[in-house]
Amino acid sequence: MDIIENLKLMQETADSLRRVGKKIGVVPTMGYLHEGHLSLIRKARHLSDVVITTIFVNPTQFGPAEDFKSYPRSFAQDQRLAKAAGTDIIFYPTSENMYPPDYLTYVEVDKITQVLCGASRPTHFRGVTTVVTKLFNLTKPHLAIFGQKDAQQALVIRRMVRDLNMDVEIIVAPIVREADGLAMSSRNVYLTPEERRQAVVLYHSLQQAQKIIEGGEKDPQIVIDKITELIRQQPLAQIDYIALVDTEKLKPVSKIQGEILIAEAVKFGKARLIDNIILNV
Amino acid sequence: MDIIENLKLMQETADSLRRVGKKIGVVPTMGYLHEGHLSLIRKARHLSDVVITTIFVNPTQFGPAEDFKSYPRSFAQDQRLAKAAGTDIIFYPTSENMYPPDYLTYVEVDKITQVLCGASRPTHFRGVTTVVTKLFNLTKPHLAIFGQKDAQQALVIRRMVRDLNMDVEIIVAPIVREADGLAMSSRNVYLTPEERRQAVVLYHSLQQAQKIIEGGEKDPQIVIDKITELIRQQPLAQIDYIALVDTEKLKPVSKIQGEILIAEAVKFGKARLIDNIILNV
Repeated sequence: MDIIENLKLMQETADSLRRVGKKIGVVPTMGYLHEGHLSLIRKARHLSDVVITTIFVNPTQFGPAEDFKSYPRSFAQDQRLAKAAGTDIIFYPTSENMYPPDYLTYVEVDKITQVLCGASRPTHFRGVTTVVTKLFNLTKPHLAIFGQKDAQQALVIRRMVRDLNMDVEIIVAPIVREADGLAMSSRNVYLTPEERRQAVVLYHSLQQAQKIIEGGEKDPQIVIDKITELIRQQPLAQIDYIALVDTEKLKPVSKIQGEILIAEAVKFGKARLIDNIILNV
Repeated sequence: MDIIENLKLMQETADSLRRVGKKIGVVPTMGYLHEGHLSLIRKARHLSDVVITTIFVNPTQFGPAEDFKSYPRSFAQDQRLAKAAGTDIIFYPTSENMYPPDYLTYVEVDKITQVLCGASRPTHFRGVTTVVTKLFNLTKPHLAIFGQKDAQQALVIRRMVRDLNMDVEIIVAPIVREADGLAMSSRNVYLTPEERRQAVVLYHSLQQAQKIIEGGEKDPQIVIDKITELIRQQPLAQIDYIALVDTEKLKPVSKIQGEILIAEAVKFGKARLIDNIILNV
């Protein structure tokens, strides 16, 4: 496994690989790899000749009051895990090289970035789409794999790729969960033992919502009320949002039918956790 | 010479060409080709194995009150001219395919797009950087050639390419002028005979500015005043801006030294004309 820090070297390496007909799969991550990331790397391994895992804690997707500085990092462990899961190249650029002092350019998807997580994190998705564009230009992938845990991110990236005619196939892989159901996240490390115990309510409330809907409920408000009630039973939980939306425009549905995304964001202390489920009714 | 309208076919063709080691040069145009465009195509011919000329009147770079609908078009003549100058492929997409109804994504360069032409055309450069990103993703060039007549556009595109790590070499080719000095532009066709006669003042005023500066003048305001005075002698001229700026941040210089851009935009009837000169003092 190679580790490449230099941007130009990464780009030249990717270009050479393409010229000899290699299929490149990329897994963009912010490091502190867990089983969720590793499932993406394994999928890339299965689908590509060369797997590039990018590790970059991207400053532009954090708000000024967010956890950029304290975001967990562990490059030594990431190397071992990424290699074991099938990575050929870790791309590990510095912030200084990715964003020189006179940096001026952003890629922005309108509308679908202003709801759900975008409502409480107004510059987040602009940072995501900008860095993903840069990473695609540097690693020149045929395919890129993202996790379904960040459901809105996956939709935003798909839209960007389509709109800007990027020649990259976007693959979205299922959420990987802890034994009790909590969605894996690098930010779970922020949780105290008591917060960790209560945090499983995100998954339980989604399961409960699924059960109600499979029982025939068509009114989204009743489902939202039920989820809210369940989450409020956990004293350390602070709800950011609970939403039932369509999977195209991410607009709240007035009736539960077709493909719907149930998404929620809940804070436990320092940790803002998200989870979601897509149902076909 | 091939004409490709289909986006996917263009992208697959470009990808195949790269895989067999061909060097692709692209010349993005809005058609109605004149000798200025042809000089860019000839340069691309000289520097590349395969020359792609794109012809697309890009709606997103026109403001609501601007001349998108009346912008001159002549695809039959463009084909002949592009072929004679050395084009291998004309990429000729439709607006409907470039911007489907639910289009949402824009590429935006900050700051240097808000001055000069950007001040009077607030969404212009966003449209330019967005369409150039799309055209680059579709034609996968090794190099792209732009004209110095659109000096600010060239600087904005260079900045976008650097910031987003696009693997494309940007080459800027000199302004091509009519016999009397008027910079060639598709919009010159809008000029009445009398406007056409007066329009040469853009070039004359730049020449005059150069002469004053080469004579030792260091005060930009004196140069601007002289240019203004000359242009105002032409009764049909309406000045949009006259500026002396540095070539990095496009900020007005307080003293004439180093590399400076003298840029002007002047309206004659329906036609908004631009011209510029770069001096090294």
